[in-house]
Amino acid sequence: MDYPSKVLSKAVEEISGLPGIGRKSALRLALHLLRQPASQGISLGTSIQNLVTDIKYCKECHNFSDSEVCDICNDPKRNDELLCIVEDVRDVMAIENTGKFKGKYLVLGGKISPMEGIGPNQLRIGSIEKKLTSNTIKELIFALSATMEGDTTAYYIYKKFKAQQVKFSSIARGIAVGDELEYADEISLGRSITNRTAYNEAE
Amino acid sequence: MDYPSKVLSKAVEEISGLPGIGRKSALRLALHLLRQPASQGISLGTSIQNLVTDIKYCKECHNFSDSEVCDICNDPKRNDELLCIVEDVRDVMAIENTGKFKGKYLVLGGKISPMEGIGPNQLRIGSIEKKLTSNTIKELIFALSATMEGDTTAYYIYKKFKAQQVKFSSIARGIAVGDELEYADEISLGRSITNRTAYNEAE
Repeated sequence: MDYPSKVLSKAVEEISGLPGIGRKSALRLALHLLRQPASQGISLGTSIQNLVTDIKYCKECHNFSDSEVCDICNDPKRNDELLCIVEDVRDVMAIENTGKFKGKYLVLGGKISPMEGIGPNQLRIGSIEKKLTSNTIKELIFALSATMEGDTTAYYIYKKFKAQQVKFSSIARGIAVGDELEYADEISLGRSITNRTAYNEAE
Repeated sequence: MDYPSKVLSKAVEEISGLPGIGRKSALRLALHLLRQPASQGISLGTSIQNLVTDIKYCKECHNFSDSEVCDICNDPKRNDELLCIVEDVRDVMAIENTGKFKGKYLVLGGKISPMEGIGPNQLRIGSIEKKLTSNTIKELIFALSATMEGDTTAYYIYKKFKAQQVKFSSIARGIAVGDELEYADEISLGRSITNRTAYNEAE
């Protein structure tokens, strides 16, 4: 489609470069911005530019951070003995959102996936090693995807560090809250029976 | 949800201000930008800012334009006698895309909608009047939505200018190409029978 203006055409092209946004949606967003006060578009543009230029990563856990070490790693009230291994920064946010974990994190930056050409060397396995040599970690908790790749990644890390004085655990797999058994997949249901927990009325 | 970084939080907030993009999608887009070279985010931000600051509107037809008068209005090959009344700049693009119209346009900027508090005064009816006084227009073509609001708008314009020496027409309403009669709504089917056209094997 021809656009009547070059600035519009350029904006549509750039916006439609984002995942899940086609040219029609991009045009709709551009026209929306044009109906708003110009300050909104300027502020949106600035915040996107600040995002990609000013973001920092915590040198301890590789989570996003505004400073060299993130708020979680810097928090003296958090338990240094628990290290939760996650794939992605979104997983940190998701777990933090539950309010149930008071240890620290390590963001791997992905999972082992031969299909996508991601091997252990592309992940931050070295950072786990560094953490373990500090001798404060008592338990490594795998909070990885319940997929073949997630399981492979956990197994790789377990094999690499099993000789160390550290306990390994994994977040519980089972039937999600609100799910009906009838529609649960066999593997999840099977695991949930095998790994059944003591009944706890407070939970 | 708490975000680990202020620049991330600000970007998510701004992006989720766009229509149809919630906070989860905004976060997904922000994380996507962080995985790309920073130049992509900078270029996206700049093009959004340029869009809202540099866009111009054609003083003749109110379409977007890079100059004071748009390429369509400036084109000497286009028929000055036909004026197509559309609601929105998107409609100009859609009609141009068909390649079937060689007249000129006038973008109303909306349609009469008491529900949304839009009356004739919010639309560019005055521009139609100005065009008609120039005496070159022979036909006003309504290319408005096939809705109550679109019909009301067309009727208002018709009533206002019917005393002038100009023909009024409306784009054809009927069964869309590819539609099956069985599933067509009654009103469209009824109109398509009333307004039947001579069979034309070339069409």
